[in-house]
Amino acid sequence: MKKTLGILGGMGPLATADLFHKITVLTKAASDQEHIHVLIDSDPSIPDRTDALLHGGQDPLPKMTASLRNLERAGAECIVMPCNTAHGFLQALQARTSLPILNMPALTAARCRELYGDRQACILATSGTLETGIYHRALQEQGVPVLTPAKYEEEILMHLIYDVVKASKPLQPEKETWQHLLDSLRAVGAEYFLLACTELPILAEGLAVPGPFVDPTAELARAAILFCGYEIREQVPV
Amino acid sequence: MKKTLGILGGMGPLATADLFHKITVLTKAASDQEHIHVLIDSDPSIPDRTDALLHGGQDPLPKMTASLRNLERAGAECIVMPCNTAHGFLQALQARTSLPILNMPALTAARCRELYGDRQACILATSGTLETGIYHRALQEQGVPVLTPAKYEEEILMHLIYDVVKASKPLQPEKETWQHLLDSLRAVGAEYFLLACTELPILAEGLAVPGPFVDPTAELARAAILFCGYEIREQVPV
Repeated sequence: MKKTLGILGGMGPLATADLFHKITVLTKAASDQEHIHVLIDSDPSIPDRTDALLHGGQDPLPKMTASLRNLERAGAECIVMPCNTAHGFLQALQARTSLPILNMPALTAARCRELYGDRQACILATSGTLETGIYHRALQEQGVPVLTPAKYEEEILMHLIYDVVKASKPLQPEKETWQHLLDSLRAVGAEYFLLACTELPILAEGLAVPGPFVDPTAELARAAILFCGYEIREQVPV
Repeated sequence: MKKTLGILGGMGPLATADLFHKITVLTKAASDQEHIHVLIDSDPSIPDRTDALLHGGQDPLPKMTASLRNLERAGAECIVMPCNTAHGFLQALQARTSLPILNMPALTAARCRELYGDRQACILATSGTLETGIYHRALQEQGVPVLTPAKYEEEILMHLIYDVVKASKPLQPEKETWQHLLDSLRAVGAEYFLLACTELPILAEGLAVPGPFVDPTAELARAAILFCGYEIREQVPV
């Protein structure tokens, strides 16, 4: 049975557009009518997740719940959230709905194990995701060894996420910063990089610096396609 | 007052993703929270519009109306449809809702007048859009002179739209066909091209053949941003 997908988006809007695009191009379909029915509530006024998790900022859960209700009413049969930090609220949100919410960190961690086995993953993410251990726990459950960026590297990541991608600034001036960050982490043992904030695949694709990378947005897209009863296209058209 | 935007999508899904992406990058915003609240119902099972307009195919209006109701219930305050051919059903749909539906052909025609004055526009579109005169009427109202592709050129357009973009096929093998089509139309007087099917800006951007082009998806994005009470970013980041 085919399922209708609900995207609880807006965190941020460009990451939501990125997930929707990835779902569309990764679905095996030869006409409009063979694609997934997708419902999106992209409410960018949802309060910042890192701010709530670490600094006592406004609770995003009421607005996330309002979006969830919109998606339920419109006929969604499963939910995805293209925001890794928002997964700090996954349990609370799942308790409020009978619809399954796909767990992006858990499914990405399983993919890391499959692709890279015992090699050392480096988590690139917001302070909210890093300091609450959202990906650390998921990777530990898969037995994947993890390298965490140092505090000053975390600040560079927050700059790239908030002052560049979320602020809609040009990416190119950040190329050296991004390259240098990856080189430094490789020097201390990173064997591949987890782009564990949905703004980072946008940065990584725009700057085209070599990884290797695991993109949780693409993993979530693949998982959603399969969960909804569709097939994945093997070769993405160029 | 800021308005919530409803996108009646799925016609096709890649065009819907393209509009959502263009709205996001064209909005002047320095953080997630400064973006538009966007609701999307992308139901690709809506029957083909050209087939209904020209060949007695299944009426798409019932499913379009169901999506409209979803968007109304979720709180949309105005509606856009990223499908030019679907505008053949605009009047019927508008009669079923008190929400304003932005008229993509009309606003694009006004933009053609503004950008190109009395120069000759060539409409590139589906048979449904071409043969029912959706863009011809809009351009006539603006006094814009129009060139229509010949029947065999219309068939090439239908091939590019249905067998390539909607079928998720690679674009590159079509570059010569696309280039040759534009050259032939230029030879008979086309001074610029209206990409009047939402699959065509995807093709044109992917193949990077010179136009000049007017992109109704980008024009609809700009109109929606302004209508919802937001500002347009002057320079799109690269």
